[in-house]
Amino acid sequence: MIGFQEQFQLDAAACETVLKQLIATSEGPASQLRDAMEHGLLNGGKRMRASLVLGAARLVSGDMTDTVGALRTAAAIECLHAYSLIHDDLPAMDDADTRRGKPSCHRLFDEATAILAGDALQSMAFDILAADSTHSDAAVRVRLIAQLAQSSGLAGMAGGQMLDLQAEERPFDIAQTKQMQMMKTGALISCAVLSGGIVAGADHALLSAQAAYARHLGLAFQIADDLLDYDGDSVLLGKPAGQDEPRGKAGFVVLLGRKAAAAEARRLIHDANRALAPWQEAAKYMQNLAEFAITRET
Amino acid sequence: MIGFQEQFQLDAAACETVLKQLIATSEGPASQLRDAMEHGLLNGGKRMRASLVLGAARLVSGDMTDTVGALRTAAAIECLHAYSLIHDDLPAMDDADTRRGKPSCHRLFDEATAILAGDALQSMAFDILAADSTHSDAAVRVRLIAQLAQSSGLAGMAGGQMLDLQAEERPFDIAQTKQMQMMKTGALISCAVLSGGIVAGADHALLSAQAAYARHLGLAFQIADDLLDYDGDSVLLGKPAGQDEPRGKAGFVVLLGRKAAAAEARRLIHDANRALAPWQEAAKYMQNLAEFAITRET
Repeated sequence: MIGFQEQFQLDAAACETVLKQLIATSEGPASQLRDAMEHGLLNGGKRMRASLVLGAARLVSGDMTDTVGALRTAAAIECLHAYSLIHDDLPAMDDADTRRGKPSCHRLFDEATAILAGDALQSMAFDILAADSTHSDAAVRVRLIAQLAQSSGLAGMAGGQMLDLQAEERPFDIAQTKQMQMMKTGALISCAVLSGGIVAGADHALLSAQAAYARHLGLAFQIADDLLDYDGDSVLLGKPAGQDEPRGKAGFVVLLGRKAAAAEARRLIHDANRALAPWQEAAKYMQNLAEFAITRET
Repeated sequence: MIGFQEQFQLDAAACETVLKQLIATSEGPASQLRDAMEHGLLNGGKRMRASLVLGAARLVSGDMTDTVGALRTAAAIECLHAYSLIHDDLPAMDDADTRRGKPSCHRLFDEATAILAGDALQSMAFDILAADSTHSDAAVRVRLIAQLAQSSGLAGMAGGQMLDLQAEERPFDIAQTKQMQMMKTGALISCAVLSGGIVAGADHALLSAQAAYARHLGLAFQIADDLLDYDGDSVLLGKPAGQDEPRGKAGFVVLLGRKAAAAEARRLIHDANRALAPWQEAAKYMQNLAEFAITRET
């Protein structure tokens, strides 16, 4: 059996290949917009969301997994994620000059181009999911689409980013911070896991377990992010470390303290993995992914 | 038979009601984001795109039209349109302080909120289309979704807006201007007409005719916009008139001259209406809509 690290890298590479193909075949006279979308999409992300989709699909159907469908689903979620990073980096939002050690989209191009690149990457995500090649059954495709739309809108990612911006003005307590993070990053992580399950035809019991896994994982992932921001090395992070706290954001480290935050992340990953325990060996990859989410160095 | 103006107002009012219901039931802790979305969505638009959806659907199925499905489709397209106006008004884009006589979204709220409101309205459009109540057949819903995604992305609206911004730096000739406008406003107008046809089950012949109608209409609509901007009264427009030309935009009036531009719009509407001529009386509303597109005062 292939090891976790190797599988994780294979998944990321496969997703990268599909994203490159998809953006290369996206043509039109607006070449600068295409270039900006490509820059946002192919900037060296870990592809953790893609791996969650692929791992969740394999948990359902193992070697019989429809790789094309799962990869297209993963690619759609990575497009959505890339759009959110481009918009989050804008001057009116987090005002970040760099992202993963490279200039952010609005710095390399300009603000208008970055706004449009995010907009068009969102459209692209839904276009990918709507196509026949993602799944032969249109009913499955609309389920994927509905879930992505809900995860990314007012009640999900965009709403979470709104709350995060407001937290700069009046600091959040721990419950508000959890709610905000469940929306801002948790919703799309849950969407990735559930989309992998849906595209591979998971039954109700497995989808429920995957939902529980994803909910715990999403929060743990964000706590790990806050820990990395607190402890992290900015070269590894590709963005200046320690930038959240001075802006008054109530990260988990500030709210709980460093040690309690780390313990909470560990506890959440324990719960995430327990949710998948009935699937035994088949769930191993997902459990390793959960472990990776809190032990990663970037 | 009910007159055009009356039907047009009924359509706009019905769309308004559905949009109000949809935004009122969109809840979550990010209330400021919801308010900004509502402001962008319910700011007194003419609902011409909604009327195109409804008219195109009635052209297929007359009194038997599934009003709920057609209205939800219309609402989705109005959400997409509202998002594009919010983002177009941003300081990095057209930097507009007002829209239809009211403060633009980023002026009433702030820039970050306006970016997120546009983002979340885009997600909302796809969420509406993906729901069962839009059409009982999931295959029809994914067709609507694919078309909306393609009309709004790189090869459509977002790409057109990118080209429009670039035209400020190096003026476009007439062919480039047409291409840009076909993408920027034409793509969503075509999407509205075709979506009405698709949701009502139009056959291939009617969809082709509707596509031709929409293509001509979209361009005529934009020429009328340029004429209004050139001649128009800023109180009626709800935005400062004559603002395009000084920024170096090669509008149709500047490129063709006032008289030739008006003649071209008239010719295009003639062609649009001829495409629907075989449908005789049933096409009357769509033909009146086309006439309205170039004779409106705002």
